[in-house]
Amino acid sequence: MPRSLAALLALFFVLPLSLHAQPHPHSHTARAIQFPDVPGGHTLQMDLHTHTVFSDGSVWPDIRVQEALRDGLDAVAMTDHLEYQPHQDDIPHPDRNRAYEVAREEAAAHDLIVINGSEITRSMPPGHTNAVFLEDANPLLQDDPRAVFREANRQGAFVFWNHPMWTPQRPSGRPALTEMHRALIEQDLLHGIEVVNKHKYSAGALRIALEHDLTIVGTSDVHGLIDWDYEVHAGGHRPVTLVFAEERSKAGLKAALEDGRTAVWHRNTLIGRASHVLPLLKASLSVVDAQYRPNTSVVDVRIANRSDARFLLDNQTEVPFHTRSDVVPLAPQDTTRLLVKPGARQEALTLRFEVLNAVTAPATHPTITFEVVLPEAQEETDR
Amino acid sequence: MPRSLAALLALFFVLPLSLHAQPHPHSHTARAIQFPDVPGGHTLQMDLHTHTVFSDGSVWPDIRVQEALRDGLDAVAMTDHLEYQPHQDDIPHPDRNRAYEVAREEAAAHDLIVINGSEITRSMPPGHTNAVFLEDANPLLQDDPRAVFREANRQGAFVFWNHPMWTPQRPSGRPALTEMHRALIEQDLLHGIEVVNKHKYSAGALRIALEHDLTIVGTSDVHGLIDWDYEVHAGGHRPVTLVFAEERSKAGLKAALEDGRTAVWHRNTLIGRASHVLPLLKASLSVVDAQYRPNTSVVDVRIANRSDARFLLDNQTEVPFHTRSDVVPLAPQDTTRLLVKPGARQEALTLRFEVLNAVTAPATHPTITFEVVLPEAQEETDR
Amino acid sequence: MPRSLAALLALFFVLPLSLHAQPHPHSHTARAIQFPDVPGGHTLQMDLHTHTVFSDGSVWPDIRVQEALRDGLDAVAMTDHLEYQPHQDDIPHPDRNRAYEVAREEAAAHDLIVINGSEITRSMPPGHTNAVFLEDANPLLQDDPRAVFREANRQGAFVFWNHPMWTPQRPSGRPALTEMHRALIEQDLLHGIEVVNKHKYSAGALRIALEHDLTIVGTSDVHGLIDWDYEVHAGGHRPVTLVFAEERSKAGLKAALEDGRTAVWHRNTLIGRASHVLPLLKASLSVVDAQYRPNTSVVDVRIANRSDARFLLDNQTEVPFHTRSDVVPLAPQDTTRLLVKPGARQEALTLRFEVLNAVTAPATHPTITFEVVLPEAQEETDR
Amino acid sequence: MPRSLAALLALFFVLPLSLHAQPHPHSHTARAIQFPDVPGGHTLQMDLHTHTVFSDGSVWPDIRVQEALRDGLDAVAMTDHLEYQPHQDDIPHPDRNRAYEVAREEAAAHDLIVINGSEITRSMPPGHTNAVFLEDANPLLQDDPRAVFREANRQGAFVFWNHPMWTPQRPSGRPALTEMHRALIEQDLLHGIEVVNKHKYSAGALRIALEHDLTIVGTSDVHGLIDWDYEVHAGGHRPVTLVFAEERSKAGLKAALEDGRTAVWHRNTLIGRASHVLPLLKASLSVVDAQYRPNTSVVDVRIANRSDARFLLDNQTEVPFHTRSDVVPLAPQDTTRLLVKPGARQEALTLRFEVLNAVTAPATHPTITFEVVLPEAQEETDR
Repeated sequence: MPRSLAALLALFFVLPLSLHAQPHPHSHTARAIQFPDVPGGHTLQMDLHTHTVFSDGSVWPDIRVQEALRDGLDAVAMTDHLEYQPHQDDIPHPDRNRAYEVAREEAAAHDLIVINGSEITRSMPPGHTNAVFLEDANPLLQDDPRAVFREANRQGAFVFWNHPMWTPQRPSGRPALTEMHRALIEQDLLHGIEVVNKHKYSAGALRIALEHDLTIVGTSDVHGLIDWDYEVHAGGHRPVTLVFAEERSKAGLKAALEDGRTAVWHRNTLIGRASHVLPLLKASLSVVDAQYRPNTSVVDVRIANRSDARFLLDNQTEVPFHTRSDVVPLAPQDTTRLLVKPGARQEALTLRFEVLNAVTAPATHPTITFEVVLPEAQEETDR
Repeated sequence: MPRSLAALLALFFVLPLSLHAQPHPHSHTARAIQFPDVPGGHTLQMDLHTHTVFSDGSVWPDIRVQEALRDGLDAVAMTDHLEYQPHQDDIPHPDRNRAYEVAREEAAAHDLIVINGSEITRSMPPGHTNAVFLEDANPLLQDDPRAVFREANRQGAFVFWNHPMWTPQRPSGRPALTEMHRALIEQDLLHGIEVVNKHKYSAGALRIALEHDLTIVGTSDVHGLIDWDYEVHAGGHRPVTLVFAEERSKAGLKAALEDGRTAVWHRNTLIGRASHVLPLLKASLSVVDAQYRPNTSVVDVRIANRSDARFLLDNQTEVPFHTRSDVVPLAPQDTTRLLVKPGARQEALTLRFEVLNAVTAPATHPTITFEVVLPEAQEETDR
Repeated sequence: MPRSLAALLALFFVLPLSLHAQPHPHSHTARAIQFPDVPGGHTLQMDLHTHTVFSDGSVWPDIRVQEALRDGLDAVAMTDHLEYQPHQDDIPHPDRNRAYEVAREEAAAHDLIVINGSEITRSMPPGHTNAVFLEDANPLLQDDPRAVFREANRQGAFVFWNHPMWTPQRPSGRPALTEMHRALIEQDLLHGIEVVNKHKYSAGALRIALEHDLTIVGTSDVHGLIDWDYEVHAGGHRPVTLVFAEERSKAGLKAALEDGRTAVWHRNTLIGRASHVLPLLKASLSVVDAQYRPNTSVVDVRIANRSDARFLLDNQTEVPFHTRSDVVPLAPQDTTRLLVKPGARQEALTLRFEVLNAVTAPATHPTITFEVVLPEAQEETDR
Repeated sequence: MPRSLAALLALFFVLPLSLHAQPHPHSHTARAIQFPDVPGGHTLQMDLHTHTVFSDGSVWPDIRVQEALRDGLDAVAMTDHLEYQPHQDDIPHPDRNRAYEVAREEAAAHDLIVINGSEITRSMPPGHTNAVFLEDANPLLQDDPRAVFREANRQGAFVFWNHPMWTPQRPSGRPALTEMHRALIEQDLLHGIEVVNKHKYSAGALRIALEHDLTIVGTSDVHGLIDWDYEVHAGGHRPVTLVFAEERSKAGLKAALEDGRTAVWHRNTLIGRASHVLPLLKASLSVVDAQYRPNTSVVDVRIANRSDARFLLDNQTEVPFHTRSDVVPLAPQDTTRLLVKPGARQEALTLRFEVLNAVTAPATHPTITFEVVLPEAQEETDR
């Protein structure tokens, strides 16, 4: 990078408009996470795991709301630890619904859904668990973890296992179900599992989710600041759960979570069941134009990417490309041009790609196919 | 800007190292505020006015420490409101030293000085006032504001008037001393004044400081996040008080503040008494090379800028420049080349500039002079 | 700057669309030079001085056309040296109209006006001179410079003195008229003068222009590549002559140049007669909104800047501002918010600024005044 | 991207140092292409195919030299068309060595090797061919293409087939050898083949190279400007041939090319024989540190990337990672941290990756293995 570009960042009298105390609309836009809706559902961005000063977080709940607005989230859950209260000397005996109440008030003027939740904070087993969509978190303050799960379920909560790859509770970082987890799942008291927690992704957690029909969840588990944890100003993003909901509401979110209609967006990777990831891929990617280049049998294909993912495709056909190898990136929110060489003019063209930055099972990428109808098939052969 | 540059910010698989929970060293460096030392003193960066959840701020004190470390500050004061406690339902009866204690603990492993302070929060007069370098903030909880000032001074605090331009207490935004302020100053109970508070600068406050021998202070008065208030990732910076201290310690800071040895760094503008701004300008700027261009009487002058200020100089001599008009910017932490046309070769050259982004009194800029000795004076005249 | 930002520039599989051989539309937009029209005239961007391989330049004329298109120019003149032909071993006896003809052909498909010109390349006096709007450059190949000027004028050319500050012909870099120049001006054979040539600006040349009623011209005099000479990808721009023409045509340009209706845009500085710079300032800058902030007498003024200039204004009134000192930058193609403190609510407000980055005579900046009518004048005084 | 960042690019009074006419040292550095040396050889960057005004290019040869210097190339070949001379009206009967001679003179003061070459420009077969390391290009002006190949070889030239995927000569874009090519190869008159030409990569050309033992070449074939063709200021780069030479000299380059010791660097992809790509991968990538994270069996592995390639690795082992899926990018000229979860502590760890942005045969990626010795193997198992 030219040093003169560095000098740009120390420019004279910067930011004449920066006296606004409120977040800038353009900041919103620039970092907002955006994925297209899928057939029959909204694609909602949700962070299901956040902390505040009401347990061991470093911010008042209003900051969580403002971060969510800047990130363009549809919903955020406040999930302070029930049992872990390091600030109790300063904040004694807090109502376990307080973070939610403060956040809901802050969000009142905005189009952001705030969810009441709690982190049930136990040693292993069962480790840490989030219960969200709670009516009242206080009755969860009980000794027996099974009783807590029952109470959460009694309230209709969606309950998921947090960071099963967390090394303080699992030194190998490779998750394993305990008997208690198996029992909770069998009794339908545990419904989901974090496949992504903060910077951590676990293929083992994904395997457990698939094998035991648990909802796939990815969360920030933020304690400090989203901006610092994910370098959002350099293009980073927090992990979010993409929820495919019939309506954009608490009820819609809850129904979709209970039904397992999710995917996770983590470090430019989409993680989820094929049944949910594939519709999202199809909604995100499409061939918007295809023409033979004049006097050739090379096809100029335009592929639109309507998502924030920078897709990385790997050609699965024998047909080569004209300007690159078999690995094709698709820039986010942009249209990419791909020159395809079928060898001779024909009526249609099949493009088939493994999507390298999507994961539908451990070490498994989904495949996406584009059937491209070509406008005219006059012969143009090599002389 | 090319859209492809925008695309850079959504690049594939960003930030392989961003899994660190702790701040990145390079982030530190990039946004750290840096000014050179002056003869006989360190130039220390200090924020004398910050809030936390212990009054009406939105963060736990550890965030204030981390922000200060990222901004490269030498010192930060914790100055929660004594009397204004909107979080009292959640944080009842707080020890008024708590924010300081928590911050000090967080800073223990770092080279950051944390100062105990309080904002005395009254209607006008006297309005809001900060007392910093307190031993114990709790005894300041008294009804009579005069008693509070006396107690703060009894503890040896440095006391300054906050945001005298604040429109809720001064609808015109143009500060005026009240009788109470005059009395406090006369009794040496009030020692400084905020000329800059958050985004606000007041020429009137500067006039009051100069007329009444008050220490010139600039602060962030941050309640939310420094990153958001000042768009630090786009080149912005919080306002800081530059303190010219004999030693880098609490005692050194306090002595310098009491002695009025400060300047304010606000939106790329240096504000302060000429007696303190001029040494800083001299420490920041120097001619590091001057040569006649071959076969000409044009002098190639290199001016080094060792500060974060993007200086803006206005030529005060009759001597013209070869590549620009009389207004000359000097990029921060860089060397700028200026071609000067004295008309004929001579032994020395005097450059004199008004420094447009420095203010030593309302609407008054300081002047800086460079006496440039030239290496050789062989004649080279226009033919 | 974070190192991670540097890493952005080396990102994976960049530029999926970069296979286009032709310039990208977005590149065009990003670097295109844009100024608003003035009352009664178009503001046309023109480079009146460029070189190609047909004299001592390093490019075929098609590159000059493509550079002009990328820079958003309205017109470019091809002005190879008549007498200086360092490539003559390879390009013997060139028709002196060739660069023009090749460029015109290249520009045929675009909305770019190409002008035929020549640089009359003599020792001092008269030094170098450009004749543009030539019908046929070849008859200018004559020994006596006076004869060349007569022939150029016979063809109706616009003739201007090149780089009078050029040190090979004027070692001090400070221009002076010779007897020959005075005679040419008196005989109306010389009509303009370069106040800016490439990176060089000369206050002395501006003085000569004003004293002798010469048209003010600024040119790139490019021999290599515009991109390299001006670091256009880091925000730089070539110097251009802004021509205030009644119609966007060769005839319109020529009439305006003959009439002296120009200004120069050089390193973010506008240089020209007050009679032409002031209308451009007025067309560029306007107050688009002004409101009292609730419960204050502080006025929130929005100033729109419809030009590419990053204006730098210096307050000439006694009325102070709420967030900055008297020096106010206005970002290009953006609206800047300025909080003004008249002291009490009133019906109108006069803002008056010296425009530091505009020059109407040596060391002289123009003044711009905004008369701001305020929507309501209910009293709001300091309590 | 925040609009304020866009505003940065139009900043006030940009580029105080931009008055240099010569290229800036830092521009050089920023865009220079850098790969590490391999055991037993220098890794030299070379562009073997460029054009100037001496055939159908748009620049004088000095620009080609300056571009090469900015791109940090070790060598550039001047290869104007022998038979295609669209500028012949202006540049009649050129000596076919002229572009080389002018470029060599321009490069004399720099550490850049300039190679004399010619493009033998025929219809198919044999299509276009480059002969480089010529002593004298003029004797190649003969009718019979076979005679031209013989003359080039008589002079000891290295001869390669240009753009076999070029649609004007091969409408499918899929190369095929003709009888003439087979004969030329058998007679050792044709030694290499362009697998990359400008923006085009051909897997078919790579197959031909491998099957017929031809040297793999990638070139820019630039006619206009490198900066425009590859958007170098947005992170792009021209295709280059990496030549693994025993010495940095013409002789070293020629010997390596004759011996097939090359790879191609095209759009962040390395293309070449496994025998040459693997040593370059090994020289570029290494594990520089590996430690167990305290109290876990997770290994913190640091992988240094000493090249300009943004590598994209695909995990080929069963061992999962802690923060990402199996696809791992390695930023250029940086160290990337990878957390690996072997399941339990052990003495050593094998990491094996397919390198997705390297190609050693059509649709074939090489595999790189890191044998990581771990410092201590005390047991740490999941409890």
